[in-house]
Amino acid sequence: MLESALNPQAGKAQWIWYPGDFEMMLLLRVHSRRYERGMQITPCWHMDTFFPNIKFRRRFHLEKPVVFQVHATGEVAVEVDGGGRYCYDYQDGVRLEPGSHDLCITVFNPHELPALYIDADGLQTNGAWEASNVDSRWLPAGSWNFTSPSCPPSDFRLEMQPLQPVSVEKIGQGVLFDFGKEMMASLKGEGFKGEGILHISYGESREEALNYAECEVREDVKVTEDCFETTLPRAFRFVFLAPEGGLSAGGLTALYEYLPIENKGSFECSDDLLNRIYDTAVYTLHLNSREFFFDGIKRDRWVWGGDACQSYLLNYYSFFDSELCKRTMRALRGKDPVHQHHNTIQDYTCYWFISLYDYYLYTGDAAFLREVYRNARTLMDFCLETTDERGFMNARPEDWVFVDWAPINNKGDVSLIQILFARSLEVMALIAGLCGDENGRAFYHSLWQKCLKNCFEIFWSARYNCFTHGPAAASDAVVTKYANMFALSFGYLSEEQKAAVIQNALLNETVLPITTPYMRFYELAALCDAGCYEDVMGFLREYWGGMLRLGATSFWEAYDAAEQGAQHYAMYGRPFGKSLCHAWGAGPILLAGKYFLGVRPEAPGYEKFTVSPHLAGLAYIRGSVPTPGGAIDVFCDGEKAEVVNHTPFEGALEWKGQVVAVPPGQTVSLG
Amino acid sequence: MLESALNPQAGKAQWIWYPGDFEMMLLLRVHSRRYERGMQITPCWHMDTFFPNIKFRRRFHLEKPVVFQVHATGEVAVEVDGGGRYCYDYQDGVRLEPGSHDLCITVFNPHELPALYIDADGLQTNGAWEASNVDSRWLPAGSWNFTSPSCPPSDFRLEMQPLQPVSVEKIGQGVLFDFGKEMMASLKGEGFKGEGILHISYGESREEALNYAECEVREDVKVTEDCFETTLPRAFRFVFLAPEGGLSAGGLTALYEYLPIENKGSFECSDDLLNRIYDTAVYTLHLNSREFFFDGIKRDRWVWGGDACQSYLLNYYSFFDSELCKRTMRALRGKDPVHQHHNTIQDYTCYWFISLYDYYLYTGDAAFLREVYRNARTLMDFCLETTDERGFMNARPEDWVFVDWAPINNKGDVSLIQILFARSLEVMALIAGLCGDENGRAFYHSLWQKCLKNCFEIFWSARYNCFTHGPAAASDAVVTKYANMFALSFGYLSEEQKAAVIQNALLNETVLPITTPYMRFYELAALCDAGCYEDVMGFLREYWGGMLRLGATSFWEAYDAAEQGAQHYAMYGRPFGKSLCHAWGAGPILLAGKYFLGVRPEAPGYEKFTVSPHLAGLAYIRGSVPTPGGAIDVFCDGEKAEVVNHTPFEGALEWKGQVVAVPPGQTVSLG
Repeated sequence: MLESALNPQAGKAQWIWYPGDFEMMLLLRVHSRRYERGMQITPCWHMDTFFPNIKFRRRFHLEKPVVFQVHATGEVAVEVDGGGRYCYDYQDGVRLEPGSHDLCITVFNPHELPALYIDADGLQTNGAWEASNVDSRWLPAGSWNFTSPSCPPSDFRLEMQPLQPVSVEKIGQGVLFDFGKEMMASLKGEGFKGEGILHISYGESREEALNYAECEVREDVKVTEDCFETTLPRAFRFVFLAPEGGLSAGGLTALYEYLPIENKGSFECSDDLLNRIYDTAVYTLHLNSREFFFDGIKRDRWVWGGDACQSYLLNYYSFFDSELCKRTMRALRGKDPVHQHHNTIQDYTCYWFISLYDYYLYTGDAAFLREVYRNARTLMDFCLETTDERGFMNARPEDWVFVDWAPINNKGDVSLIQILFARSLEVMALIAGLCGDENGRAFYHSLWQKCLKNCFEIFWSARYNCFTHGPAAASDAVVTKYANMFALSFGYLSEEQKAAVIQNALLNETVLPITTPYMRFYELAALCDAGCYEDVMGFLREYWGGMLRLGATSFWEAYDAAEQGAQHYAMYGRPFGKSLCHAWGAGPILLAGKYFLGVRPEAPGYEKFTVSPHLAGLAYIRGSVPTPGGAIDVFCDGEKAEVVNHTPFEGALEWKGQVVAVPPGQTVSLG
Repeated sequence: MLESALNPQAGKAQWIWYPGDFEMMLLLRVHSRRYERGMQITPCWHMDTFFPNIKFRRRFHLEKPVVFQVHATGEVAVEVDGGGRYCYDYQDGVRLEPGSHDLCITVFNPHELPALYIDADGLQTNGAWEASNVDSRWLPAGSWNFTSPSCPPSDFRLEMQPLQPVSVEKIGQGVLFDFGKEMMASLKGEGFKGEGILHISYGESREEALNYAECEVREDVKVTEDCFETTLPRAFRFVFLAPEGGLSAGGLTALYEYLPIENKGSFECSDDLLNRIYDTAVYTLHLNSREFFFDGIKRDRWVWGGDACQSYLLNYYSFFDSELCKRTMRALRGKDPVHQHHNTIQDYTCYWFISLYDYYLYTGDAAFLREVYRNARTLMDFCLETTDERGFMNARPEDWVFVDWAPINNKGDVSLIQILFARSLEVMALIAGLCGDENGRAFYHSLWQKCLKNCFEIFWSARYNCFTHGPAAASDAVVTKYANMFALSFGYLSEEQKAAVIQNALLNETVLPITTPYMRFYELAALCDAGCYEDVMGFLREYWGGMLRLGATSFWEAYDAAEQGAQHYAMYGRPFGKSLCHAWGAGPILLAGKYFLGVRPEAPGYEKFTVSPHLAGLAYIRGSVPTPGGAIDVFCDGEKAEVVNHTPFEGALEWKGQVVAVPPGQTVSLG
């Protein structure tokens, strides 16, 4: 791994904290900002918080005396060279004489994240320090890009940009503002006259904004001056203001809140619809890439493991923000003790383990796997508590076995869950090996083998020649696509089984079709893996193109071409329940980068990679995929395929049955 | 158990919270209030905090419609009859129609304890509700005496009483205030003139208050008006004010902060010194009986398990505040996961288990044991992780094996630790039985038997005919009193072994003498158990009488008659390091109640009890011991022994070899 790519702050003093606690603080903040018709809705699962009392320590050798200032968020106690030797008066700085010193600094803060910053000659806080919540264990301290003493991690804020409406329309006693596209923003009102209550209804659609009673997000602001600002950013394109009493409305500016990341990838092709689909997908992902990866910015405005697992993959082909991935994975994992699955869902716990592997494959960042191994083990312990003699993970009464929104029976043994669990065990064996825990590696490896063997024993149907949803021997055994497509992607199938699965499950029209973009994501990927590029291209134009034709500025939680007008906005029995900006709608990013440009890592951190472009009926495709070591640029038309390798590693270009090496820094063509 | 005695709030609406979280909130507050020379000193062990997001639920049947107000500390979401059915507008109250309803109310607050209060006809919050930190598990909600909607648990404050100094003395540029006795108080200054910095030094002794540089507690206040108040209560008898700049000092009032509890016991005898010792012991215990049982009010101002274990016992013979015991036990236990022993000390974890038994014996409150069983099991799991084939608990490298401040070797096997651990296992078997966990009972019982058997195998010395400190077979085996006196008190010795232990360990002058009041507490109790009442009485007069002769108004952390003047105040290498108000100095309360009056429970909650008065050379003793069912009054002189039984249970009076039953409500005499 290229250290500098993942840690651009090396060498600078950084604020430090207890590892993972920045994420706990931030997640608590994020998860307490969802309001539904004025009522705060917190997640339906456990939330952890940061530890209030942290000790930080480091051993130093000083060549000359140093006087350092202690910056901290919280109350501080400084011990030098042994417990109990406190510095009582250090307003003018702590002075250390030359020589070796043990520094131990306690920071206490029950309200905000306890954090520490020291920047003196030869004495800087950074990830080389250790932190403890005073539980007799020391871990490498958490740190990131907080390098200014005046900007501690508890002050973390996203960026803000004022945006003007593209149209303003008086409707009855109120005013409708259209900001032209979906966004997450707070509001700044100016030029208001009089005093009174301002009813604000937010809409992802025009219809939603105009329906105060049933819109998902609304608030009432008491306006007493000519200007005001709302406190929380909300998701909307449209805002309707209905002033009450003697108030008359003025102008509105959206204070667009966003994470300052740029798309390091690109995609362009001969089909403008596809280009617009790609751009809208990137925008959709960006809106949901914030403190963490959200599912949707209006709803649920929460961090869900299943959704995040897809966002990571999309991110590797666009923003390549590995810190955002790590923040989200730490946040989802939370703290010990583990009493429930991620988001209470069995499959979502498995996606967390699987995400670790994806993260490692794309970034090569073994340090993060070492960081989380301790917590990964206790999470796996929680799973193993329910395993049976077949090595299958069973559901507790309170566990949610989700799989997908579909008319399927998830009672008893479910093939997808065990395939995901097998993969989780395989990932644990990999991480254990990376951490030098040979016993752990052997332990997880044998559990993986057992679980996988029994997946084939129990779920592989001789009759259907593919996996069934539940046990194959059951009289009501039925084929679904889920286990089949994941087993294919995980490489668990022989060539013969692969062909059978494609024919009997993935391309079998009698099998229950997948209707959610959530599982469609994996299905389209599996179809590409199976070589069905043109089918996928057709679906892209129809499904995502269909949303664009309806005026979508970001992609939706779900889309059914058969629906009419405002029917499109309804879901969960609520007229505006559907999220019109959902991360899992951004799947075209993966299709563009991994399958059409065809760039994928074959070893962690792209130390090996392949490029296999597929036109899928297009006249040409051109684009770029980011990697930790630099971009990989691809061009392909009917005549040739060309790769520009900006990385320090050698890759391979595969096109029309030919394979050629792509050395570091070189441009290589076929055709 | 008499329910009303332990839960006087039954029938009233109560604030409710996640069980144990009131204690987490309060302990965090308490543990962050120790300042040493102006620097905050937090404990050298892990501190937990409360969960920020709590769901409360209950199923109700309503005969008629009800409209209720929701009072909460935090943001609220009300769900009625199923997840997701939110009440969006309930400013005017939530209306429920007649019939059965499931009410689920979420309270979110990251800064203060989330708590809930509802008081409507047929719908009240109380301990019958369940609470969850949304971790898929529901527990009975926590509650106490917070019955007013305007006084939530996060507003918990001790009582306050203004006290005037008994003398004021100008010394140099400053003024010394003597408040006549030790106390914990903040200060109110009045009649100050000018503006400037006021240096305040607090002293448990006059010498300490006059030494700004080396006093343990001091603060600087910027005075700009004629009056001020300090924010934190501090421990002191003396306060010295040194004004700076144009400031001149005015008068001072101590705002004495205390827990409003009364001594339900009493003791009086023919020796006035002993009466003063008893009164001072009660005052010492009261000063340390606050949010929790403190070790000392100046230092450490923390909750230590070893100290608390003694305070509980003293409390059963005086204030009988069972809520204070429960608060302290919950606070010490903290939350899962367990990564360290209580206060990092192996023996202190054991004292927690042992305290549970004492609590049950004196109060009969099985409900509390059921409440803590879940946490007791995970704490015992932590201990069992280190047990070996002998069933002994071993020390991790980070564990502190304390035993006592004494020149003893606590490396390797230490007999006291294993005796305490055996007792802990015995208590766990008892609790498991009470909770109907028969597997647990059998499991802990067999571990107890194994550990106890090996205690005798490894530590009982044939040569010394008692327990040695380490393994008896070691060439450097040496007798100490610790294991011997605890094994005696726990009833682990045969009559023969008991006699041997008394002779060869407890009364053996060649054995290392105990010098701390901490272990002296158990030693004096064991000596009484061994019938040596007059020896104990002599020690009482000498040791506690010695402190009184030096002007003590509360009892000290340690006392050595050989020291002179201000030497008495020094400890830990600091001139005023010694605490002059230490809970473990209050031991005479136990000696008076349990051994001189001779009152002790023989079954949980005093459903059986004995009274065996011992004059120990006094002309008469008279007193009272509180129990959950009422007081037991005792009088004894050379002529007769008399008991007045105010409890609903039958006891037995034993005196001079005679035994007579004491029926409920009766007065019975012997002699």
